[in-house]
Amino acid sequence: MRSTVKDVAARAGVSPKTVSNVVNGLVPVSESTRAKVEAAIAELDYIPNLSARGLRNGRSGVIALALPDLGTPYSAEVAHQIVEVAHEQGWSVQLEETGHDPHRELDLVSKARANLIDGLILNPIALDVSAIRTGGNLPPVVMIGEVEQHQVDHVGVDNFSAARDMTLALAAGGRRRIAILGTTENRRTATANIRTMGYRQALDDLGIDHDPHLEIACDEWIPGGSARALGNYLRENQLPEAIFCFTDSLAIGALSVLHLEGHRVPQDVLIAGFDDIDHGQFAVPALTTISFDKRALAEEVMRLLRGRMADRKREPVQLTLPYQLISRASSAAH
Amino acid sequence: MRSTVKDVAARAGVSPKTVSNVVNGLVPVSESTRAKVEAAIAELDYIPNLSARGLRNGRSGVIALALPDLGTPYSAEVAHQIVEVAHEQGWSVQLEETGHDPHRELDLVSKARANLIDGLILNPIALDVSAIRTGGNLPPVVMIGEVEQHQVDHVGVDNFSAARDMTLALAAGGRRRIAILGTTENRRTATANIRTMGYRQALDDLGIDHDPHLEIACDEWIPGGSARALGNYLRENQLPEAIFCFTDSLAIGALSVLHLEGHRVPQDVLIAGFDDIDHGQFAVPALTTISFDKRALAEEVMRLLRGRMADRKREPVQLTLPYQLISRASSAAH
Repeated sequence: MRSTVKDVAARAGVSPKTVSNVVNGLVPVSESTRAKVEAAIAELDYIPNLSARGLRNGRSGVIALALPDLGTPYSAEVAHQIVEVAHEQGWSVQLEETGHDPHRELDLVSKARANLIDGLILNPIALDVSAIRTGGNLPPVVMIGEVEQHQVDHVGVDNFSAARDMTLALAAGGRRRIAILGTTENRRTATANIRTMGYRQALDDLGIDHDPHLEIACDEWIPGGSARALGNYLRENQLPEAIFCFTDSLAIGALSVLHLEGHRVPQDVLIAGFDDIDHGQFAVPALTTISFDKRALAEEVMRLLRGRMADRKREPVQLTLPYQLISRASSAAH
Repeated sequence: MRSTVKDVAARAGVSPKTVSNVVNGLVPVSESTRAKVEAAIAELDYIPNLSARGLRNGRSGVIALALPDLGTPYSAEVAHQIVEVAHEQGWSVQLEETGHDPHRELDLVSKARANLIDGLILNPIALDVSAIRTGGNLPPVVMIGEVEQHQVDHVGVDNFSAARDMTLALAAGGRRRIAILGTTENRRTATANIRTMGYRQALDDLGIDHDPHLEIACDEWIPGGSARALGNYLRENQLPEAIFCFTDSLAIGALSVLHLEGHRVPQDVLIAGFDDIDHGQFAVPALTTISFDKRALAEEVMRLLRGRMADRKREPVQLTLPYQLISRASSAAH
C-alpha cells in the first residue's frame, strides 16, 4: 500500500505539517528535522501527493528555459548561469530545446500554463513575436537574445552598437576590406540581421562602400559550419583584411580553416568573434570578442520573471546590459 | 474567477475529457482539436488543476538530469543529446547542477521522489555510491560517466582501455616521456583515477618506469585551469614528448599555453584530449581524442531508465559503449 504523509510523520517523529514543509520547501526547516523526514520518505518510498506540493497560488516552483540548441558553448554558459541563479532562488529549471523551429517556440509559449510552468525564459531565434498574444493570456515570459519587439519583458545587449564598435576596431589602421561571417540565407535570425546593420553603419561612418561579396553567409553557427563556409569562400575570393565572425564558435571554425590553408592570424587577416565563450580566450590565437556579464544577465532575467509573476499587467520592461570589446591576439595591430 | 476545465471545454466546443487529454498529453488528439483546446486554454488563462495532469501511476512526466557543471562543452553536448532523446519519448527534463559537491549529489538522489521526479540521470563526480541505498527505496536512477559501483544502472565507456590505447598511440615511434595532464589533488574523481590507471598500464606494457613528475595535476578541468597548470609546470620542468590531457577542454588550454610559449604542436610535443567535443576538431592544430557516440549514450540511458521505472527490482545493468581513438594533427607523427 502506498505510504501517506501520516506514515512518514510517524516514522520521523514529527507532525504531518512538518513533513509537508520539508516536501514543499517553502518554509525553513532545521537541518536535523529535514534529514529525519527525508530518511523516512526514502525508507517508506513515499511519493508526495501532487496537491501536497504546496502550490500556493497555483505555482509549481518550476520555470522553463528554452534555447535553440543547448549543445553550443554559448548556450551552455548562459544556461549554466540561469540554472545557478534560479536554484539559488528556489526554482527548478526545466530545459527545452527549440531547434531553431519557430513553431516549437510558439508551442512552448502557448503550452507553458498547461504544462504547469510558472514562467518561461525564451531565447527566440525565429519567433514572430507578433504571434504572441499580449496581456493576461501570456504566461510570465522573459526573452533573452535579440528580438525586435517591445511587448514582452526582455534582457539583452545592444548588438547594433557592439557590431559597429567591433567593425570600427577592425578598421583601425586603415583596413577597408572588412568582411562579416554569419549572415544567413535559409533562416531568419534577428541576431544576424542586427549585427549586419551595425557592421554596415560602421562602414557608412568610415565612408566605405558596402561590398556584398564581403558578407559571407553561414547558416550553421558552429565551427564546422564556418570552416566550410569560409573554405568555400576563399576558393573564389581574395582573403579579406579582417573578418568579424558573428559568434566565437564561428570564429573558431574560421581560425581552423585559415590555419589549414596557411593564412596567419593576425599577420595576414584579423579575426574577431562575439559572445566571449570560455574557449575563445584559449583559441590559437586568443580571440578578440564582445563580452557581457552572463551572471548579470541571469540575475536580471530572474528578477524580471519574478516581477512579471507578481504583476502580470505591468508594462513590458526592456533591459539593456553593458558590453565590452575585448582585444586579444587575433586582432592585434601589426 | 479561475477558469475550469468545463469553461475550456465549452469555449473549445469539445468534451471536458478531450481537454484533459490535451493537457495530459497521454492520449493522441488530432492537431485541429489540440489547437482549439490550446487556444481556449490561452484565452481563458486556464491553469490545469495539478491532479488533472494525468499522473498515472504517480508519474509526473519529468526526469532530472544532474551534471557537475552544465557550462562545459562536454556536459552541454551530453545534455543536448539527452534532452533531445527524452523529448522524442515524451519526457521533460529538469536540469540540476551538482557543482562537484558530493552532498548535492546525495541530496538529489534522496529528494528525487519528493520532488516529483520520475527518474534521475546522474553524472556523479565525487559521490560515494555506497551511500546510496539500494533496492526499492532508490528512485529510478541511471548513472553516466565514470563510477566504481555495480549497484545502480550505468552507461559508460571503458576509460581504462581508452586511456591505455591513447598512451600507447602517443608512444608510437619510441617516445618515452609521455605526460598526463588532469590528475587531481584536491578533489576525488573516478574519471581522473581510472584514466591514470590506464596510462600507467600502458607504461607497464611498454616497459617504461612511472615518473611522478610526468603526472601533471590540474583540479579545474577547464582551459584556464590547464593553461595555468601547464604554464607553471613548464617553468620548472622539461617539455614532455607528448601530453595526454584528460579532457579536450584541458587540451585546448594546453594548446594555448604551448602556442604562447613558442612550443610547436606536434613538432615539439604531441597533444591529445578525451571526449571529442565539437570545438576540438577545429582547434589549432586539430585535436587527437577519444570519441564515443553521445546520441547512443542518450538512447541507452533513456532505455535503461524506462526499464528501471517499469521494474524497480531488476538486477542492475552495466552498459559499456564502444569508443574510438581519432588521430588528428595534434599528434601527427613527425
